[in-house]
Formats: sequence, C-alpha cells, structure tokens
Amino acid sequence: MAKQEFAGTVLAPLPLVLVGANVSGRPNYLTIGYIAPLEFGKQVVFPINRTRYTSQGILENGTFSVNIPSVGLLPLVKRCGSTSGRDVDKSALFDTFYGELKTAPMIRECPMNMECEVLEIVTTKQSHNVVGRIVKSYVNEELLVDGNVAVQDAGLMSFTAAGDLNVYALGPLVETLHKHSRGKQ
Amino acid sequence: MAKQEFAGTVLAPLPLVLVGANVSGRPNYLTIGYIAPLEFGKQVVFPINRTRYTSQGILENGTFSVNIPSVGLLPLVKRCGSTSGRDVDKSALFDTFYGELKTAPMIRECPMNMECEVLEIVTTKQSHNVVGRIVKSYVNEELLVDGNVAVQDAGLMSFTAAGDLNVYALGPLVETLHKHSRGKQ
Repeated sequence: MAKQEFAGTVLAPLPLVLVGANVSGRPNYLTIGYIAPLEFGKQVVFPINRTRYTSQGILENGTFSVNIPSVGLLPLVKRCGSTSGRDVDKSALFDTFYGELKTAPMIRECPMNMECEVLEIVTTKQSHNVVGRIVKSYVNEELLVDGNVAVQDAGLMSFTAAGDLNVYALGPLVETLHKHSRGKQ
Repeated sequence: MAKQEFAGTVLAPLPLVLVGANVSGRPNYLTIGYIAPLEFGKQVVFPINRTRYTSQGILENGTFSVNIPSVGLLPLVKRCGSTSGRDVDKSALFDTFYGELKTAPMIRECPMNMECEVLEIVTTKQSHNVVGRIVKSYVNEELLVDGNVAVQDAGLMSFTAAGDLNVYALGPLVETLHKHSRGKQ
C-alpha cells in the first residue's frame, strides 16, 4: 500500500445539512458541509462565513436548527448552498415547523431535525465557529422504532471534499456496534 | 410527515476514524466517532476523554494523526475502541508510517491519513477538545486520480449514533457538486 501525498482534508464521509435560523422573523436555510458533534453528541459545532445572511439570524436569536436531508432533497440543498437569503426567500422552499425554542425554524421535509441554542461563538477572520447545545431532536414518526432511529430508512446522503465535492448515498448497514438502551432486545 | 421527539443527537452520517499518537515513543491508536473539519477543511476538532492513554501522547508531542479506515478494518476499529494502550500494545495491530511531523504515527492499512499539529486544546471536565491543523494528507496510490481522491473506491464506512450505534457502508456516488480544480476536465 504505497502512499501519495495529498494537499487538503481527507476526512470522510461527512454529513451534509441545512442550518436554519430566523432572520428578521423569517426562516432562512443554509447548506453546511462542515459540522460535527461536540461533547459526545450533546452539542454541535460548525463554521459559517461571517458574511452569510444566516449568521445574522443566529446572532439575533441565539438559536438555530440542524436539518438532515434525504437524497431526494439534493436539488434544494444545492439551491440553499448557492443562493443568499438576501436575494431569495428560502422560507418558501420548505414547510417550516418550530419546537420548544420557538425561534429555530426546522424543515418538515427533512427526516431528522435538531433545535439548538448557541453556547459560544468563536469568531475568526473568515468565520463564526458556532457551538450549540442540542435542545431537542425530531424525527419522522415512521423512523422511530423502539426509541431508536431507523437511520437506514431515512435515505440520507454523505459528503466528501477530498478533491471533488461528491455526494454519496448512505450504503447498507454493516454492523450494530451497540444497541440503544431504550430499545427492546 | 408527522414528527416525533427524540432525546439525543441525530447528526448523521459521521466519519469513524482512528486517531494515532506516540505515547512514550510507541504508536497508539484510538477509535474516535466524533470528529469534524474546522476552518473550511484546514483543521480538525475532536473530543477525547481526558483519561485516555492517547491523550498523553497528544499532549506529549503536540501532534497526532487521523486515519480513515475501510470497512474491512472494522474488527480492528472495534478493538482500538474497546481496549486501552495501557493494557494492549496497539502498535502491533498495524503497519505504522510517519510523515513530515515524525511524531504522528499513521496506519498504512487505512486508505486515507492525515498528520496534524495541535493548535489548541480546550479542556472541559470530561474531555480534551483537540483542535489540530492538517499538515499533510496521504492516500493510497491507486486512489489518487488526476489530483482527486477516488473516495468511492476506498471502501469507507460511516457511523450513526441516533439511538443504536450503527456502522454503514458508503453508498454509490449520487452527484459531483464541484470538480476539483487540479483534475482534468
């Protein structure tokens, strides 16, 4: 297995999500390719360009949502990544719902959603690195089986940026490493 | 699409990697399920339990590696996640190689590797949140095609923690969102 050097990240596969925030009271959604759990799944962190319209809403409300789209939503995911809420009313693209926080708009068409409150924003020259606490998660009713999310039925996709920006479907289940404690045996 | 509440993260799918560090001069590898890019791919961040043996090596050298395993390595990935370098010599499990940093051991059997230098460690009660700069990446020779990594040929897996801890294969390519600039047309 001879190795070649490669300039750039090879971390893969990554989630591809839609981050939601209310900007001046109207829902706006932005595609984010770099997001991760922190604190063993209790929090999320993602960088957002400081100039992004969605940034305003996150700063304004101190809340945001993370919506996990299925492959069928890829055309809208691309649109939310290539247009600004300054120019396009992205609230018209989806059916929005709200949870406990009331100010974090979530996308009903996405099979999995999380509403989050901002814990910390680390601002660098280029970006706000937003750290949020997951307040509550929501999943499509039919995906919740015995307190467990049937992720393999959600039609998810993943994203890689090792050279080309590629989108892949989620493949078959290989192995369950640990059964969820609330599930039946 | 009626929604149900779910207690816990639904961020998915996630990469499942092996983080490497030299502890007292000997390579050690730990399975990490929560890791993400920062600064638009130039950095990575991951939390590691403060009591972990690998933590010592990261603090000792200020360097570490991130190794992306293929599905065939899952038995060893599980072993590196369930045993400590205090008890088991995990350097014997893999063929180790070094890059520019000299102190960040990488796993030759993993198709994709990154060597990183520590930029910052944010320590909480439970964990060190390690932020590292990617110094150089390495990929298996046969995966590098026209300056692009053929991720679909790397046999990668992804990980979800929405209830059960499940491992999935990477599915087929859905779409190339953006061609790598160094690749030929």
